[in-house]
Amino acid sequence: MLPVTHLHAVIMAGGSGARFWPLSRECDPKQLLSVFGTQSLVVQTIQRIRPFLGMRPNPVCVVTNEQLVGPLRRHLDETVAGSDTTMRFLVEPVGRNTAPALAYAAAVLQAEDPDALLFILPSDHILEGNGAWADTVQAAVLLAQNNFLATIGLTPTRPETGYGYIVAGEELNIGQVGQAHPRRADRFVEKPDRIQAEALLEIPKVYWNAGIFCFRAETLLAELAVQGSQGQQIVETCQALASDPPEAWLTDRHRERFAALPACSIDTVVMEHSSRVAVIPANLQWQDVGSLLALESLGTADANGNIRIGRGVDIASNDVTIYTTERLVATLGVENLLVVDTRDATFICPKDRCQEVRAVVEALRQIGAMELTEPCVRMRRWGRWETLLRGSRYQIKLIEVYPGAQTALQRHQQRSEHWVVVEGTAVVWRDDEIITLSASESLFIPPGTAHSLTNIGTGMLKMIEVQVGDDLSEGDTERLKLETMKEMVQ
Amino acid sequence: MLPVTHLHAVIMAGGSGARFWPLSRECDPKQLLSVFGTQSLVVQTIQRIRPFLGMRPNPVCVVTNEQLVGPLRRHLDETVAGSDTTMRFLVEPVGRNTAPALAYAAAVLQAEDPDALLFILPSDHILEGNGAWADTVQAAVLLAQNNFLATIGLTPTRPETGYGYIVAGEELNIGQVGQAHPRRADRFVEKPDRIQAEALLEIPKVYWNAGIFCFRAETLLAELAVQGSQGQQIVETCQALASDPPEAWLTDRHRERFAALPACSIDTVVMEHSSRVAVIPANLQWQDVGSLLALESLGTADANGNIRIGRGVDIASNDVTIYTTERLVATLGVENLLVVDTRDATFICPKDRCQEVRAVVEALRQIGAMELTEPCVRMRRWGRWETLLRGSRYQIKLIEVYPGAQTALQRHQQRSEHWVVVEGTAVVWRDDEIITLSASESLFIPPGTAHSLTNIGTGMLKMIEVQVGDDLSEGDTERLKLETMKEMVQ
Repeated sequence: MLPVTHLHAVIMAGGSGARFWPLSRECDPKQLLSVFGTQSLVVQTIQRIRPFLGMRPNPVCVVTNEQLVGPLRRHLDETVAGSDTTMRFLVEPVGRNTAPALAYAAAVLQAEDPDALLFILPSDHILEGNGAWADTVQAAVLLAQNNFLATIGLTPTRPETGYGYIVAGEELNIGQVGQAHPRRADRFVEKPDRIQAEALLEIPKVYWNAGIFCFRAETLLAELAVQGSQGQQIVETCQALASDPPEAWLTDRHRERFAALPACSIDTVVMEHSSRVAVIPANLQWQDVGSLLALESLGTADANGNIRIGRGVDIASNDVTIYTTERLVATLGVENLLVVDTRDATFICPKDRCQEVRAVVEALRQIGAMELTEPCVRMRRWGRWETLLRGSRYQIKLIEVYPGAQTALQRHQQRSEHWVVVEGTAVVWRDDEIITLSASESLFIPPGTAHSLTNIGTGMLKMIEVQVGDDLSEGDTERLKLETMKEMVQ
Repeated sequence: MLPVTHLHAVIMAGGSGARFWPLSRECDPKQLLSVFGTQSLVVQTIQRIRPFLGMRPNPVCVVTNEQLVGPLRRHLDETVAGSDTTMRFLVEPVGRNTAPALAYAAAVLQAEDPDALLFILPSDHILEGNGAWADTVQAAVLLAQNNFLATIGLTPTRPETGYGYIVAGEELNIGQVGQAHPRRADRFVEKPDRIQAEALLEIPKVYWNAGIFCFRAETLLAELAVQGSQGQQIVETCQALASDPPEAWLTDRHRERFAALPACSIDTVVMEHSSRVAVIPANLQWQDVGSLLALESLGTADANGNIRIGRGVDIASNDVTIYTTERLVATLGVENLLVVDTRDATFICPKDRCQEVRAVVEALRQIGAMELTEPCVRMRRWGRWETLLRGSRYQIKLIEVYPGAQTALQRHQQRSEHWVVVEGTAVVWRDDEIITLSASESLFIPPGTAHSLTNIGTGMLKMIEVQVGDDLSEGDTERLKLETMKEMVQ
């Protein structure tokens, strides 16, 4: 399949991730976590749609909120920037659920490109399927080009009450691509109760609504506008916003207007009522990372229903899920428990109450707990770093650099850094010096010195960094251009 | 009270501490832990009896087993050596419970000093009481000098089924010292069931047997010998052993003979039958560190019965005890749970099953888990160190040195060490150099270099040590005499 002209990926990345603590942090919401794979969920989402996008500027829109736009921008800048994907960030003036958010994206993109085709992807899904996925995307695009609102339907595996269901009707003759056989969507059922859900599973051609959509911007806005006054208000507000230049989108005027919109989902406002909705049943390995129990997909249950990810032992427990990154967790005789263990914090609750972790997050916020805000591990384009220990005047990090990769060039005024190479070989730039460091060698980086290091070995470079100083925050990091350094050392 | 001639402290320190994992480790049994106070339980025990001992050599005997004698010797050498207390270690040829162990100590001490008076102290108790304690010790010594087997009785606070009880009779006219009013012990009840325990609490003058005894070596051996063939066999075996020189005590001959002894407690063989037993009711704050639930004494229960030691939050839990050293543990809606969290391992079980942690320890042994053998924190006379992270070729420690204290002088052949001072000021000896290091300064200690550091500041010296090399074990540590260094630098 060739890249599709006018196709825009719209990545929904506004979730705060409070339900994923202690893995997620305030500045590290779950879409930024690389728990499920080597890349973060948001990067996986972008890479999933990237092969189908054209080479024009900004084929990816990341829809998020004001709190997360900074962390997301840095994260994507450091993990996918430099690739051929460019992206823009659409910041919701006020959080108002998916109908206003998608109308906002549609209005903005349509103002630039009247033929804009939007492919909507939540950023907290795990999805695999290669061929089936490619066929599904292509079918969705064909449907959208024919003014359908295309949705993706997944085969339900249990009477889940947390999802929406789609009852499919006749097969359509548009968008028949390989494994993809789209049908008309006859009926939507949003979050049924248990009895309804069980009844739905008895019906043939019933699917879970994956929250993945494809439509022309024009189609969405037109279908919204015909769905009564709520829809009209949303369309007018978003179009008024899009007709202003981007720097005006977060002014008080638009904020107030946006805040006055009803907070409603695209499913209830459009999909349940429109006659132009198609569903593409897709055989994909899919998972919604909606709660910490999603971690269960990373392991396999033993005979007693226990799932363990990471090191540990268990004696006589039942229905226990334990996730631990590097520490050992030993359990004895416990039941129906979820344990999530990270370097600096552990969370323990009954499995069926894990959604209530929000209350724990709120309690931590009230005591100003560092474990709510500070991330432990940061993925970078060149590798990763991890905080091992923080004191009032020191911080110790383990820095790992991929073979051939070079860290950002930076300078601090308030702290000195002490580097000890433990594995591999590094070439360090320190102001105008070039220094080679092998395992067990160390180097002092005084305050005010520009520095960067490159892994010149074939394996990972592992280094301990001991920072000492009065200000150890990110605020004392001055980013420099690598070119500056190259000039200095030549 | 003056030091008592012929008085020997016999510290019972043979427990493996498996019931205290993950706080205890194989080489760090609970008597070596400083969880309950700034000093370890065994050091607290020695300090408790030290004021009453004379200045002759070896007033303290530590009775232990072959596995623990090395760690205990190092620990005591580094925490109480250099004081005026000297000690010896009596290694049980084979573990055979308290009757053979005490007879062994009595036989060995009597062979040297026919008038030896033994004060027996378990090393896993917490005990406070100042004046009451001094009176109790003095009373016990007076009773022992008059050929009584003196025991200490504690006022029971609950119908505990895990302890022995002493029913006291008439007041004695020997050993009336201050608050101490000894009585004849009429009856011993070993680990009663719940109904028996409740009935015992109804009787006046009933006490818990603290396992603290005082007697002349001669009295114990004589009372043992009259208690039938078991007692005679124990006395003969121990006296035969004591008549050989110490280097023969662990030969196969004695091991086999010792192994043939019945494994029985001093209570069942002697105390329950002898008419020479006295009990000193003592008003002491006492606690037996028999299981992880002993940690509860470090905190206070909230309205829901939850006890928290360390940082964390809880939402809606009941009867939960959480011990955490530095990491945060958050709980939500759990019941009757014990959580013990250390830097490298966490243990979770229902509170009433915490004794079964032994099964976890066994499971960890079978997988060769480092978290069973390696301690995280080591107390030293000069301060403490803590392992922050271990890799295959590196190890990072946080070293803290008391003001004015100097670390051991040592040398490694296989590893280099990198020191970064984070707080305070140190003077370092590195071979024949003397180097002053202030906060944020660092120093490289190459392999083969003798080194030691002294905290010359008024607060704690905090230092990060990064070790890199192929052999990071204790085996590559060569201890040097401080005098050598003093000669070198003069």
